[in-house]
Amino acid sequence: MSYGAAVPSSGAVTVLQPLPRDGIALRPDGLLASWQRRNATTTLPHNVEQLETHGNVDNLRRVTGDVTGAFTGFWFGDTDVHKTLEAAFWELGRSGTRSPFLDGTTALLEKAQDPDGYLNSYFQVDHRDRQWAELDNSHEMYCAGHLIQAAVAAARSAPGDAAAQQVVTVARRFADLLVRRYGPDGEDGIDGHPEVETALVELYRITGHRPYLALAARLVELRGHDLLGGGPRRRRYYQDHSPVREATEVTGHVVRQLYLLAGAVDVAVETGDSPLLAAVERLWDSAHDSRTYITGGQGSRHTDEAYGDAYELPPDRAYTETCAAIGSFQLAWRLLLATGHARYADEMERVLLNGLAAGISLDGTAFFYTNPLQIRTGRDGSNEYAPSQRLPWHSCACCPPNLARLMASLHTYTATGDAHGLQLHLYAPGSFRTGDHAVQVDTGYPWDGRITVTVSLASAAPWTLSLRIPAWCTGARLAVNGEPVEATTGYMRLTRTWRPGDRVELTLPMPAKTVTAHPRVDAVRGTVALTRGPLVYCLEHAGLPSALKGLVFEDLYLDPAAVPEVVRDSEAIAPVLLRIGLRSRTGEPATAVPYFLWANRGPGPMRVWIPLANTESEKR
Amino acid sequence: MSYGAAVPSSGAVTVLQPLPRDGIALRPDGLLASWQRRNATTTLPHNVEQLETHGNVDNLRRVTGDVTGAFTGFWFGDTDVHKTLEAAFWELGRSGTRSPFLDGTTALLEKAQDPDGYLNSYFQVDHRDRQWAELDNSHEMYCAGHLIQAAVAAARSAPGDAAAQQVVTVARRFADLLVRRYGPDGEDGIDGHPEVETALVELYRITGHRPYLALAARLVELRGHDLLGGGPRRRRYYQDHSPVREATEVTGHVVRQLYLLAGAVDVAVETGDSPLLAAVERLWDSAHDSRTYITGGQGSRHTDEAYGDAYELPPDRAYTETCAAIGSFQLAWRLLLATGHARYADEMERVLLNGLAAGISLDGTAFFYTNPLQIRTGRDGSNEYAPSQRLPWHSCACCPPNLARLMASLHTYTATGDAHGLQLHLYAPGSFRTGDHAVQVDTGYPWDGRITVTVSLASAAPWTLSLRIPAWCTGARLAVNGEPVEATTGYMRLTRTWRPGDRVELTLPMPAKTVTAHPRVDAVRGTVALTRGPLVYCLEHAGLPSALKGLVFEDLYLDPAAVPEVVRDSEAIAPVLLRIGLRSRTGEPATAVPYFLWANRGPGPMRVWIPLANTESEKR
Repeated sequence: MSYGAAVPSSGAVTVLQPLPRDGIALRPDGLLASWQRRNATTTLPHNVEQLETHGNVDNLRRVTGDVTGAFTGFWFGDTDVHKTLEAAFWELGRSGTRSPFLDGTTALLEKAQDPDGYLNSYFQVDHRDRQWAELDNSHEMYCAGHLIQAAVAAARSAPGDAAAQQVVTVARRFADLLVRRYGPDGEDGIDGHPEVETALVELYRITGHRPYLALAARLVELRGHDLLGGGPRRRRYYQDHSPVREATEVTGHVVRQLYLLAGAVDVAVETGDSPLLAAVERLWDSAHDSRTYITGGQGSRHTDEAYGDAYELPPDRAYTETCAAIGSFQLAWRLLLATGHARYADEMERVLLNGLAAGISLDGTAFFYTNPLQIRTGRDGSNEYAPSQRLPWHSCACCPPNLARLMASLHTYTATGDAHGLQLHLYAPGSFRTGDHAVQVDTGYPWDGRITVTVSLASAAPWTLSLRIPAWCTGARLAVNGEPVEATTGYMRLTRTWRPGDRVELTLPMPAKTVTAHPRVDAVRGTVALTRGPLVYCLEHAGLPSALKGLVFEDLYLDPAAVPEVVRDSEAIAPVLLRIGLRSRTGEPATAVPYFLWANRGPGPMRVWIPLANTESEKR
Repeated sequence: MSYGAAVPSSGAVTVLQPLPRDGIALRPDGLLASWQRRNATTTLPHNVEQLETHGNVDNLRRVTGDVTGAFTGFWFGDTDVHKTLEAAFWELGRSGTRSPFLDGTTALLEKAQDPDGYLNSYFQVDHRDRQWAELDNSHEMYCAGHLIQAAVAAARSAPGDAAAQQVVTVARRFADLLVRRYGPDGEDGIDGHPEVETALVELYRITGHRPYLALAARLVELRGHDLLGGGPRRRRYYQDHSPVREATEVTGHVVRQLYLLAGAVDVAVETGDSPLLAAVERLWDSAHDSRTYITGGQGSRHTDEAYGDAYELPPDRAYTETCAAIGSFQLAWRLLLATGHARYADEMERVLLNGLAAGISLDGTAFFYTNPLQIRTGRDGSNEYAPSQRLPWHSCACCPPNLARLMASLHTYTATGDAHGLQLHLYAPGSFRTGDHAVQVDTGYPWDGRITVTVSLASAAPWTLSLRIPAWCTGARLAVNGEPVEATTGYMRLTRTWRPGDRVELTLPMPAKTVTAHPRVDAVRGTVALTRGPLVYCLEHAGLPSALKGLVFEDLYLDPAAVPEVVRDSEAIAPVLLRIGLRSRTGEPATAVPYFLWANRGPGPMRVWIPLANTESEKR
């Protein structure tokens, strides 16, 4: 049985399927596995502690009468408990490690739940009169959605576990209430913050109970008919300005938009609704083609945490919330499963290794809420909305637990299977198996572009091993048992009767490159970004040679004649750095670090897009 | 006696003085006079109507019991009544026209005022318990400040008028209350929104009552000592992060910062506090040198309506509120009076003719709240925060009445006097007199750079006629009675024994120019702006030739070889347009319009900074 987040049911119209729970074992020396280990040993315990410190768990204990005192934090703070519970269940499934948070919280949720299934610590104690009365902003279904996703993780990770069964029971009670209130026999209502749609489809997938799917489909369809009210800007903010099927571009609050589209894909594949899937693909295009940063980040405006106009991509005021990166990754995964198109895996890789990974510190205990591509002063190091320093927690702490649940399930996104064989999407060392087919992957990716895939298990019949050739790569080389095979972008599909020991060697050349943006991106005209392979690099103050540190960061220009040079240094902050000449008083070269690793050596200025010296002399 | 806004007392340490009330008579055919006429005949009546429609006046009638119903609009909505009253009194002083709004409103204010002097329709009816309890956000002193400024306009414009005397009485009662509550014998308290500081100094100036000045000085000093509370971002927002004397750069909410500095200048000149004046000049430098748009607009961030970092000047997300332009104009005026430095008059001219004038439609009945320098789609024409269409009123309607009060007193900012003679700062046709010296100015400025100044009245003793040579101008030519005189930037000071009929001819060459921004301004690298004389021009969709209208606006590039050509067309939207070649499919030239006149021919895309075609091919 397939395992992970977003597992299509057997009746779904889908191209790919996640692998079974034991189908993926990442080797500890890989980058992704190191993130998962850090998440388990550091981030998850850190987050649990923060939830206690900031009162999120106590808010639920107020419902049960176990503590007194005032509600603290945002009214949707329950979700951070739910997301942490989800992370704990994924971790239980991944490593067998049982977080102490898991049992206590599950029992607390059951105790706090109303007899009719309602569960929301903000409304249950102080605001009973407003329950269900302010769907535009109450986040009640949004909170329910995250509870349901914790239950889905529990059911998939530990089906026989008592706590897992308990949280499924709690989630179903709430979902049944939603079906009664807002299902076909109930009233028309949608939540200002989408999330419950994808959760309900997933709950249907683990239970087979079709009313959950029907409600999810209904909620997707009801959106865009002014049920939430508000003026034009507000309606665009929560995507209630247009039905999903008719919308022509992504708009408004980025996380809401992405979660909504994730739910729409889930509904589309489960109901075979190809026009709905096509609508989501069209909207994904509008996001990807003109509203996505080179880091994979989305969200150009602080105001409304929103998409900007097409090509409005300021590096300094980029909002690019960590949760938006997670939402983009999860949406692309769903579209990949539904269509099998490599572009979705390309985008997963880009956002994961850049905009998403930047959200967490090297030590796993501090987080960015926003991930801009330029910081001028770094003075406001601790300002959570214009940061040059990750913080242990945020006033609105959606990102840290969101990162934890993603990291705990990250391995499940790396490969898939279908009737014809196995597909490798995100390269990491480890073993991958579907049914009778298994391979071993050896690679130092993303620091090294050489990937060796060794067949470890094969049936007698021919099957297809598919390897993604990333769109960023030119000149990929492929050899099967030493025999060269021509490689093309997209998936390289190798169909044959494989034998154990067969060896595929894929080489993805990773020269350091300078990249320019689309000419319509006004904000970074006359600049280049440094990249190598899937990684975007940046200059940060901490990495400047001392001779340059006294200069104003904005006075540093790339020497147009300089070619970035790859520097390997296993002792440095990253195994691979890029050295490039700067036009400055000293002419000294600077060393660029992977964007996702910036701000781990102290706060300060940073920039991804670096001006070319010749643009400086363009004055007339 | 000097007349206008911000008139230093006889004891003030100041360099220049405004002219007397009858010292300036603008001729109707000039641009500034046409704005004043439009303001009197159209904007002021329009605003009065809007105040009735939107309940601002009824909010005050609720206090007197004349109407019932709920309070409407923002809690500081009284200010829009006060600012409109101020405008009406300036207009009475300028043209003798008595707005019907004037007497009724003055009587209403007196009737609504509490016996102790308190007057605030939000707190008086529904929120007595919160009176004076939330100074960080209550705007109570801010509202008092605008009431006081209405009284100052009344006292200066119509000293013998009963209504004028009545509003002065009302304002003094409130000011006396402020002195009792927050003066040296009262508590330490400041308002989250500065404004009352400059108002109190002005009230001192018309009454001679020193406690008003002392309170103003005290409020300036108390700021920056965490009286308002809040975190670091909040404290910067309302400039409570640092005492004015110690601040090194402008920060936070732009209008608050500018109003605070205006008050600080007023305090400094009245108390002879030269360190305080120097501190304001230093802060003005930080705004002017790195946080001011080419249009004179200030405010780079929608979030907090705030200044950005140095050189953070995005054209598309420029906030550049109309009220900030007004605040910048008023601050520069105060600094001009205090120091006599031409750079302040240069900035007054720049912001007035560009960022400020853009805030109002050609017909005087619609207004921009924000004034960005680039609009990509123009689709959200009616969105008040990302506009391509001026609106008749705004939910927060601070700008329209603020424009009206400035326009009604605009002539008073054009020239000054001192012991040595007369200074002309803003060129407009009309007559200007101080004491025994008078001149007649003939000019088509800003469309035409020729200015003829004819002496119409002169004493037998030598005196100095000073003419500003704007910093934007190179090659200015000056002749006195046909004799060439070498002209330099700054003030050209012509000292002689003038005789009636003496004629000074100043020619300010106004070629069309392309201008580049400071290289640290990342957001507009590789682009140029078109200017002529003091005016910034822009391309707008409505002005494109039909062959270009079908193109995406962002695909238009300036042909680097093209030189802007001046097009004179008295039938067009502006007498002078600039034509320049664009790199496009058709190669057709487009015509640029003055920025302040954009969006008068329908909503749509617009841009001030236009990319050069060669930056398009910079890809590597």
